[in-house]
Amino acid sequence: MRGKFYGVGVGPGDPELITLKALKILRSVQYIVAPEKQEGKGSIAFDIIKDHITDPHKVISMVFPMTYDAQTLDESWGKAVQKIGALLMEGQDVAFITLGDPMVYSTYIYMMRLLKTYDVEIETIPGITSFCAAASRLGIALGETNETITIVPSAYNHPNLDKILEYSDNVVLMKTAKNFPNTINILERHRLMGKSVFVSKCSHKDEKIIYDLKSLGDEKVDYLSMVITKKGGLK
Amino acid sequence: MRGKFYGVGVGPGDPELITLKALKILRSVQYIVAPEKQEGKGSIAFDIIKDHITDPHKVISMVFPMTYDAQTLDESWGKAVQKIGALLMEGQDVAFITLGDPMVYSTYIYMMRLLKTYDVEIETIPGITSFCAAASRLGIALGETNETITIVPSAYNHPNLDKILEYSDNVVLMKTAKNFPNTINILERHRLMGKSVFVSKCSHKDEKIIYDLKSLGDEKVDYLSMVITKKGGLK
Repeated sequence: MRGKFYGVGVGPGDPELITLKALKILRSVQYIVAPEKQEGKGSIAFDIIKDHITDPHKVISMVFPMTYDAQTLDESWGKAVQKIGALLMEGQDVAFITLGDPMVYSTYIYMMRLLKTYDVEIETIPGITSFCAAASRLGIALGETNETITIVPSAYNHPNLDKILEYSDNVVLMKTAKNFPNTINILERHRLMGKSVFVSKCSHKDEKIIYDLKSLGDEKVDYLSMVITKKGGLK
Repeated sequence: MRGKFYGVGVGPGDPELITLKALKILRSVQYIVAPEKQEGKGSIAFDIIKDHITDPHKVISMVFPMTYDAQTLDESWGKAVQKIGALLMEGQDVAFITLGDPMVYSTYIYMMRLLKTYDVEIETIPGITSFCAAASRLGIALGETNETITIVPSAYNHPNLDKILEYSDNVVLMKTAKNFPNTINILERHRLMGKSVFVSKCSHKDEKIIYDLKSLGDEKVDYLSMVITKKGGLK
């Protein structure tokens, strides 16, 4: 019998913000795939679960470079799918762990699609997103009554960002690190600086919360960072 | 010493989709407030946690009518805040449970704000949202690469819905129950019917997933329902 492939969301960072279901699966599978950006750099998702896992031998690190280059991605995804596919064919259950939620901007999405050709059972376990964790941490509503909430990946200038800031009530700008000066410019243009807050590494030990976005001007911004903007004010 | 007030997200429905942190707090507090729509109707949030709670005596039901009438809301919120406030003043810790995530369209948001005047410590524990659970269940990405995701409360026609459908890549229409025929009309107008899927009571025992939205025409739609629309197609 073939093994089962799981996508498991491990939440935003705090090891206690993992679900009972995720934990049960991580303990039951034969292999856990921990994605890392660079060989030997370690996996943020694995750091979150490491104290929950009693058998570290079942963890396999796989490299997924942070790039938009299609060829590099195809190669690393292809390698990973082959390795995971081989384990599944042997009848081993494999869990791919992912920071936050597996269906929100994760590498798991591509693994899931590519592994469908292997005709194996696939189950995805949702996780706490960083933006939900940040709203709780800040004590501000992500959305209330009839407010809309828009999540915008902001590693580069998003072509619709002006329109989104015009038509959505609350906006979460994710992965702002590489593009922080532009993000600031756009928020200034929309007069939303006083209605925005910066959060990086939410629920991690080195979490940072900054209300005065200008003060971050030249500082290196962590990859796991976001800006939450609420037109009605931060409440 | 005053008690501490917690907002605890219990997730979308499956009792295993609760976090370790939520469970720890629910077991440690002296009181758990379970919101219900009508006296004696029961609390969906409590149904999710009931098998996790060994001491049912610590659960207090409080009625929060589902209405937009300001006076009715003020009265029910006022009563709830007085009761919870009194317990906190006695030094009791109180957890208010909420379906999904506490910062996404929940009654807890108002409780939290009103209880700030009591000068007590408040902590909010994020939960798995229904839309993340639905995306995992369906095996479709809520957002990938540079796609935007917009959450729209759709109990009534949202004034910006046309613009949101124009400018956002992926849209989640929440609480569509009362407004389902209008939702269908708008999706038809935007030629998005084939790119939309209906999910109700996600991860509950009576979960429903329907790809042919037209087939739901005259059926009574559950309150806990949503439509996920992906312009790039349901994948």
